[in-house]
Amino acid sequence: MSQVAASGALKPGAPVINLAKGFEVDTLKRLSEVIDEELDAAGCRQDHPIAVLLGPSHAEEVAQEQPTAVVLSGQEGADWSKWRTWIAGPFFRVYTNEDMAGVEIASGFKNIIALAVGMADGLGAGDNTRGTLMTRGMVELARLGGALGGQKETFFGLAGIGDMITTCISRHSRNRNFGEAVTRGDKSPQELLADSIQVVEGVHMARAALKLGEKHNVELPITKQVHDVLFSQKPPRQAMRELMERNLRDELD
Amino acid sequence: MSQVAASGALKPGAPVINLAKGFEVDTLKRLSEVIDEELDAAGCRQDHPIAVLLGPSHAEEVAQEQPTAVVLSGQEGADWSKWRTWIAGPFFRVYTNEDMAGVEIASGFKNIIALAVGMADGLGAGDNTRGTLMTRGMVELARLGGALGGQKETFFGLAGIGDMITTCISRHSRNRNFGEAVTRGDKSPQELLADSIQVVEGVHMARAALKLGEKHNVELPITKQVHDVLFSQKPPRQAMRELMERNLRDELD
Repeated sequence: MSQVAASGALKPGAPVINLAKGFEVDTLKRLSEVIDEELDAAGCRQDHPIAVLLGPSHAEEVAQEQPTAVVLSGQEGADWSKWRTWIAGPFFRVYTNEDMAGVEIASGFKNIIALAVGMADGLGAGDNTRGTLMTRGMVELARLGGALGGQKETFFGLAGIGDMITTCISRHSRNRNFGEAVTRGDKSPQELLADSIQVVEGVHMARAALKLGEKHNVELPITKQVHDVLFSQKPPRQAMRELMERNLRDELD
Repeated sequence: MSQVAASGALKPGAPVINLAKGFEVDTLKRLSEVIDEELDAAGCRQDHPIAVLLGPSHAEEVAQEQPTAVVLSGQEGADWSKWRTWIAGPFFRVYTNEDMAGVEIASGFKNIIALAVGMADGLGAGDNTRGTLMTRGMVELARLGGALGGQKETFFGLAGIGDMITTCISRHSRNRNFGEAVTRGDKSPQELLADSIQVVEGVHMARAALKLGEKHNVELPITKQVHDVLFSQKPPRQAMRELMERNLRDELD
């Protein structure tokens, strides 16, 4: 990145728009923060405003011209409503959102819930359970996102609940599929990970979110159970039972 | 209702908990308001606090003991956290929520979006489109719900997005199925309605929501397209195109 920028291949004023999800593994920095540092190291940070383009957008379906909507969220320094127009097309709708932290955090963490839904699928759960896990899952992630500087509304937007729904209802999602595979019990999560040729982001994210939740004193019941199934050999059925047995509470607390 | 109450079959202090969704057809009153009036007519309104129990809960799955979570939302006058405990079971988790208007409105209107998702399914849309319709659909319903006195957070809870997800991913939902049937084009929506032995709530709700949106000056783009397909012979494909061609905007406006 810094080499590209320093080489002059990026014209001054050209934004850098990141389409990848996730966080730097060791530091848990958001990818826009990593890009920012790299541009800074190349001495051209001021020349290139950074944005992310995220949302419910399986690439295969975008290529097939299935109607898709995404979120463009960028730093100050560019007219993103212009870029929104340039990027949009007849089958590709682009919304702007000024809450870049929220957009990145929601997109990164939603795969934790995709793992939970995959586990529930593997246990034979029905649509009631799926709807509940996605809803309560996004509520806890929004709570964490708020503590990390994002806006809750972003978590209930395209980069959050939208991308989560698309992921959880797709038979092609590697995160959902991984959750389902874990429940078969013929291999441990670690063996399954070693076998996997693709990255299963939710596994790293469960650990990261839990750490951040502890730091910011945010309770993450679903994330905790996913984490314990993945890293503490908790049987998925026990994890589900423990979720159902928690103290009853107000929904909006 | 008033006869039951007046007959003394309900002991004073016993709450009336409504499990049905929807609104009175002509008046658009919420069902809790209708029950309230009936109790009032029977002269025992003060004796029976009213609540609703709603959320992502297909009855067949509840009967199968699939893990399910719902919302109990009631008037002042009862200790709903006690009722929450009495109603809950090992497979049935009950959250309280003080926003009864929001819970009822969200539950009633989510079927409009189920119709939209069914139509998209019928047009061959993929998971990107489904995720987008559910997300943007709930955003517009939350906007309307806010204008009607509900809390936005309720719409992103179990009675709103939760029940919507469960409905939209279920092959058994008559609202989703009806939306899909409309796109086949061999029968008009009115002919399909005449054939239907079950009530398709979303059809009435689309008309009601649109009226309320006009009254309260709330834009409802997805609801409007669903309405026009159902009542103005707009081809579903054109409705989808018009949704994609709307002016680009900020996500959180």
